[in-house]
Amino acid sequence: MTIRIGILGYGNLGRGIECAIKQNDDMELKAVFTRRDPETVKVMTEGVKVYSVDDAVKMKDEIDVMILCGGSATDLPVQTPEYVKYFNVVDSFDTHAKIPEHFDNVNKAANESGKVGIISVGWDPGMFSLNRLYANAILPEGKDYTFWGKGVSQGHSDAIRRIDGVKDAKQYTIPVDSALEAVRKGQNPELTTRQKHTRECFVVAEEGADKAKIENEIKTMPNYFADYDTTVHFITEEELKANHSGIPHGGFVIRCGKTGMNKENNHIIEYSLKLDSNPEFTSSVLIAYARAAYRLNKEGQKGCKTVFDIAPAYLCSQSGEELRKHML
Amino acid sequence: MTIRIGILGYGNLGRGIECAIKQNDDMELKAVFTRRDPETVKVMTEGVKVYSVDDAVKMKDEIDVMILCGGSATDLPVQTPEYVKYFNVVDSFDTHAKIPEHFDNVNKAANESGKVGIISVGWDPGMFSLNRLYANAILPEGKDYTFWGKGVSQGHSDAIRRIDGVKDAKQYTIPVDSALEAVRKGQNPELTTRQKHTRECFVVAEEGADKAKIENEIKTMPNYFADYDTTVHFITEEELKANHSGIPHGGFVIRCGKTGMNKENNHIIEYSLKLDSNPEFTSSVLIAYARAAYRLNKEGQKGCKTVFDIAPAYLCSQSGEELRKHML
Repeated sequence: MTIRIGILGYGNLGRGIECAIKQNDDMELKAVFTRRDPETVKVMTEGVKVYSVDDAVKMKDEIDVMILCGGSATDLPVQTPEYVKYFNVVDSFDTHAKIPEHFDNVNKAANESGKVGIISVGWDPGMFSLNRLYANAILPEGKDYTFWGKGVSQGHSDAIRRIDGVKDAKQYTIPVDSALEAVRKGQNPELTTRQKHTRECFVVAEEGADKAKIENEIKTMPNYFADYDTTVHFITEEELKANHSGIPHGGFVIRCGKTGMNKENNHIIEYSLKLDSNPEFTSSVLIAYARAAYRLNKEGQKGCKTVFDIAPAYLCSQSGEELRKHML
Repeated sequence: MTIRIGILGYGNLGRGIECAIKQNDDMELKAVFTRRDPETVKVMTEGVKVYSVDDAVKMKDEIDVMILCGGSATDLPVQTPEYVKYFNVVDSFDTHAKIPEHFDNVNKAANESGKVGIISVGWDPGMFSLNRLYANAILPEGKDYTFWGKGVSQGHSDAIRRIDGVKDAKQYTIPVDSALEAVRKGQNPELTTRQKHTRECFVVAEEGADKAKIENEIKTMPNYFADYDTTVHFITEEELKANHSGIPHGGFVIRCGKTGMNKENNHIIEYSLKLDSNPEFTSSVLIAYARAAYRLNKEGQKGCKTVFDIAPAYLCSQSGEELRKHML
């Protein structure tokens, strides 16, 4: 029997889920739910229907796990506690500061419904969090470093697009090589925001716009750019499309720690990702945790969980015996 | 209440466990057990007694988790199923091919005694296995690469020491940079044994020994060296002691995988370790899993487990709430 997956929200993440399902033999895409007019949404998988989000609950017996592909700002805080009343759900809620509150809301609803809700799945939060936790458990005395990039920051790109005279823009977050190297050498540097990352912007200006003014507005924008060394390149719309239409990302989680009676030995644990497509990779993580949600619920478990609460074997379709034989 | 740890076997690993306990506030070293005359074994922690291994079972109510620090060849296959009759145990069994058999033996005994036995803990098997599993779960279509080093291989050093005319020796396993780079670039190379690692040997010859003969014996030794590009350096005993007395190790687990409707996007997941002391790092992993063994058993769980079966949160002393707030 295959695990029947529903996708709620058909943007970049929803499409990534659709692709990921094709790579997992034990899963099938059962339905896609949208807030748009379903007639206007065309999915890639043959035979799969698109429904209005209003019809989702009616299909509660036909879907084993619903993947919630909405945004963290306004969608998921409402959707995850709501849909876990009817479905096992997985979301990619990524507002770090609000995770405790989101967890409590989802946990309450999931305990009442008897379903499993796994929140904050992806790579950060997600795989990066896991690596922080494992590294901290192993090396309790040490220092953590997280670097992001090189990759596209959607939030920063959007911020540039809101500037007067900007037609389109793409922003890359880039880790500073010398900072990474110092960390890897075990030098335990104290790094300011500016020393860790630089920001590179590719901007298409409206005809006749004041480029010097735009550049200044970007570089001095509080929170987004003011604390960073920022480079601005003005390019044509064609160049933006040709060279900057991908959504790559990635990053590094590094922990340097000490062991020994006199703390004489240093150890470096490093985890890194280099991703051609941020949403497709995130989707692939979500799908692995959808498998876990399904299995845990089959075993009678309920409530809200994060990547910290799930034994790794639940993510794989192979049996424990096979995993021990081939991967241990 | 602290978790009371016993150490069975006081070699490099046992001493590493002793150091690691000092870095974890929720643990205390209760006793060390040895096959040697306990009078001849001096531990570093004040107030801790050394007992004969024959007295271990008598202390079953005073120890929450026994860490088994014996070797995989002959000690652990006997010790782990034996001691799990009386204690929660953790071992670092690392004979990959025999893990299924070891698991079954420990599982049977642990299910009968009601204790938890966690086997094959360390970094390979252990953290490397976990990273293979997570990466495979996320990217089902891809290719795995494991590189070891730069580090000291005890087995290879021992093999050199058994050669006639060799007084002492140290062997380093070194990953080939160009192979690593090709993997990181997503080129999915097919790599032979020789293309992945080189071996570098530092040898102290007996006075008057035939060095050319020794070098030839090393380089042509089947399984150990014949399939590798091996370099042999003859050095003095003083040089060996001064420059090669550490036990560093490390390595890389890399998975390259594809996503997308037409598999058009590549992703690289890389995990790496750079360790000053192989046994101390392994010990630090064992201690984290000792915490898990204790907690799982408190919850009523029993049987044999591996790193695949244990939810990450069990490794940390912090509450789920704290972990979500600070690490997710």
